[in-house]
Amino acid sequence: MTTTPEIETLMLTCGRDARRAFQALGKFSSGARNGGLMAAADAIQNDQAQILEANAADLEAAREKGLSAAMLDRLALDADRLRGISDGLRSIAALPDTLGVVSDEWERPNGLLIQRVRVPLGVIGIIYESRPNVTVDAAGLCLKSGNAVILRGGSESLRSNRALHEAFVSGLESAGLPGGAVQLVPTTDREAVGFLLSSMGDYVDVIVPRGGRSLVERVKQDARVPVIGHLDGICHIYVHSQADQDKAVDIAVNAKMRRTGICGAAETILVDRQIADTALPAIVNALTEKDCEVRGDKDVCHRCPNAVPATDADWSTEYLDAIVSIRVVDGLDAAIEHIETYGSGHTESIVTEDQEAADRFLADVDSAIVLHNASTQFADGGEFGMGAEIGIATGRIHARGPVGAEQLTSYKYVVRGSGQIRP
Amino acid sequence: MTTTPEIETLMLTCGRDARRAFQALGKFSSGARNGGLMAAADAIQNDQAQILEANAADLEAAREKGLSAAMLDRLALDADRLRGISDGLRSIAALPDTLGVVSDEWERPNGLLIQRVRVPLGVIGIIYESRPNVTVDAAGLCLKSGNAVILRGGSESLRSNRALHEAFVSGLESAGLPGGAVQLVPTTDREAVGFLLSSMGDYVDVIVPRGGRSLVERVKQDARVPVIGHLDGICHIYVHSQADQDKAVDIAVNAKMRRTGICGAAETILVDRQIADTALPAIVNALTEKDCEVRGDKDVCHRCPNAVPATDADWSTEYLDAIVSIRVVDGLDAAIEHIETYGSGHTESIVTEDQEAADRFLADVDSAIVLHNASTQFADGGEFGMGAEIGIATGRIHARGPVGAEQLTSYKYVVRGSGQIRP
Repeated sequence: MTTTPEIETLMLTCGRDARRAFQALGKFSSGARNGGLMAAADAIQNDQAQILEANAADLEAAREKGLSAAMLDRLALDADRLRGISDGLRSIAALPDTLGVVSDEWERPNGLLIQRVRVPLGVIGIIYESRPNVTVDAAGLCLKSGNAVILRGGSESLRSNRALHEAFVSGLESAGLPGGAVQLVPTTDREAVGFLLSSMGDYVDVIVPRGGRSLVERVKQDARVPVIGHLDGICHIYVHSQADQDKAVDIAVNAKMRRTGICGAAETILVDRQIADTALPAIVNALTEKDCEVRGDKDVCHRCPNAVPATDADWSTEYLDAIVSIRVVDGLDAAIEHIETYGSGHTESIVTEDQEAADRFLADVDSAIVLHNASTQFADGGEFGMGAEIGIATGRIHARGPVGAEQLTSYKYVVRGSGQIRP
Repeated sequence: MTTTPEIETLMLTCGRDARRAFQALGKFSSGARNGGLMAAADAIQNDQAQILEANAADLEAAREKGLSAAMLDRLALDADRLRGISDGLRSIAALPDTLGVVSDEWERPNGLLIQRVRVPLGVIGIIYESRPNVTVDAAGLCLKSGNAVILRGGSESLRSNRALHEAFVSGLESAGLPGGAVQLVPTTDREAVGFLLSSMGDYVDVIVPRGGRSLVERVKQDARVPVIGHLDGICHIYVHSQADQDKAVDIAVNAKMRRTGICGAAETILVDRQIADTALPAIVNALTEKDCEVRGDKDVCHRCPNAVPATDADWSTEYLDAIVSIRVVDGLDAAIEHIETYGSGHTESIVTEDQEAADRFLADVDSAIVLHNASTQFADGGEFGMGAEIGIATGRIHARGPVGAEQLTSYKYVVRGSGQIRP
């Protein structure tokens, strides 16, 4: 892909400014960074009128373009949502500091004292769709860990993002922090994204895509810098032969239906043949009562007239909707094999009262999060106690599972000697 | 780049076999994996005759191609070196196990117990030059952490690598482990590397390049999977105004001259102006006595007739040779600024008796390894007590500094509940 010189200049300036601000940030204490986050939260509330006006313009343009009601809802801000966004920043400021923590420490026989100390990642590029709240959440989490950030949101939310960004930066600067630490890509030109992914390795340490599968795939394909992201959340519940069937029903319904659009929502339920006759009707009835469509294999349809037949494609589909696929399996090994074959390595849960079976499942299922007797909807940084998250990583490099402030750090080795030379 | 169908088939088979072996490896205990490493060490010693014969053929072909003496030396094996290689495997087997370690654990108010548990990375691709020992070291370290590995060495060492690989696999299999966990790319066709880097993301989790700058750059440019590697080791010694000058001389000479060809060798020495009159001649004389060429700025050349003038390019050059650049700086901030401008983020050391200055340097210099009163040549996994290393990472993602067995792991979250559903 070619890039026009204008875009290149814009983007390189953006990258250099972010890098410089990142270096400047190193001089500030965590208290100062938290003060900056609080000031940004205040600024967003103070600038409410301008932000809502910009958002109204985005919404009007989006309606003219014929965006779906769901998309419009994601894009829309109001006073309540803005307060939620500001409160989110304040709760990030209140999180314990992750920088400077000595995560490991040991002494060598020659007297060298080695410490592994947590440091920021550097400059983080965030590419996201048209949710203006991500502009603030992501910037807040990056700053919390001492990183600079380059934000590139969906073009539908450009006016809203600009207004939020302006408020955020003015808040930072009023607290004495470098406003350049939060950069908003200054153009909606698609070339700019390509350039950010492919040609800014000198300035950007990692890219985090936040959005649907096509966005993440594109980022992974084009990026020449490391990417932390996830593609699919095809999460499974396995109801083991020794399951407490009441728990199984509660967990299955919650994992599928609490919110169907999040990546931790269950998409497939595996039911052990030994308890299929009783567990299956209970689970299927509970789900259909909640207006969930059940697609089952032969063993399911045979027992549950309210299920429709599943096709092979169902086992690898992330519905993100009130649809679930259900299959009968012959024991723990068959369940694990199904998950290995069709899962996306995100989150899986076993329901059982048999501790040994649970331990085997937790050890052998190779997913970012494995649970015993709990809903897959707990796959969330907030629920894990991380305070906030920038997403869930399904890759195995650097971060896996919820990506919070700690996962946005690197480390360095600090070695203290008394004149040691290497023999 | 296009790839012929033959190469694609070869490489996809290799990737699938590695992935399958990785999954099979999960069933083996660390004791079993260590047993496999010991058996591989034995097999390499038992197959000494075939390995040395293959190496002799490589050496002959390399001589005909006119390879340098240094390259031939890297390629050459003999009984002693083979014993060293086997002993290296045995010492990897003796390292403590890194898998299954619970690195963090906490309970949520709702009773969920969350553990972060160390798991293997997956399938690791190693691309290296013509040092046959890397074939065994890298495979050993990967297996230690439960990973499968795809090895691609330099074409000059192909026969040696094949013989070593065959011995390694036969050792693994004799101990009951899946031989497929160690794959050697079955062709020297350069297309195969391109395909490995660009099109095997379904099978390969991370690529580790081991070699010179051009190899690493090519890998970083072409890879569509994460890369752990380092480009340059432009390491600095800063002799502070409060340095013990005897320590400064010893550390400078050791950091530069102990071995000049390793990435932790110092390339630039910064001397504080306050002690330049005494420290400079002492350091420069000690280095020139060891036949090190000294390239200095005006302040150095003025004080030391045995120094030659440095050019601007010297400050960003990794000599990997008996050459050093020396510059006079005005205090700690100027030293840090020089390192920020010209350093490669690898390893830097301050020599001083002033604890406050040391602490500032250790905190503010943003390199993988920062030392106080110690030689930069300690930048090594063995010297850090990691037992063995696969290289030194200067990136900030996943691993930074020496990459040992622990750095070749990922983690997963194990969550134990009693029927919790998310409100």
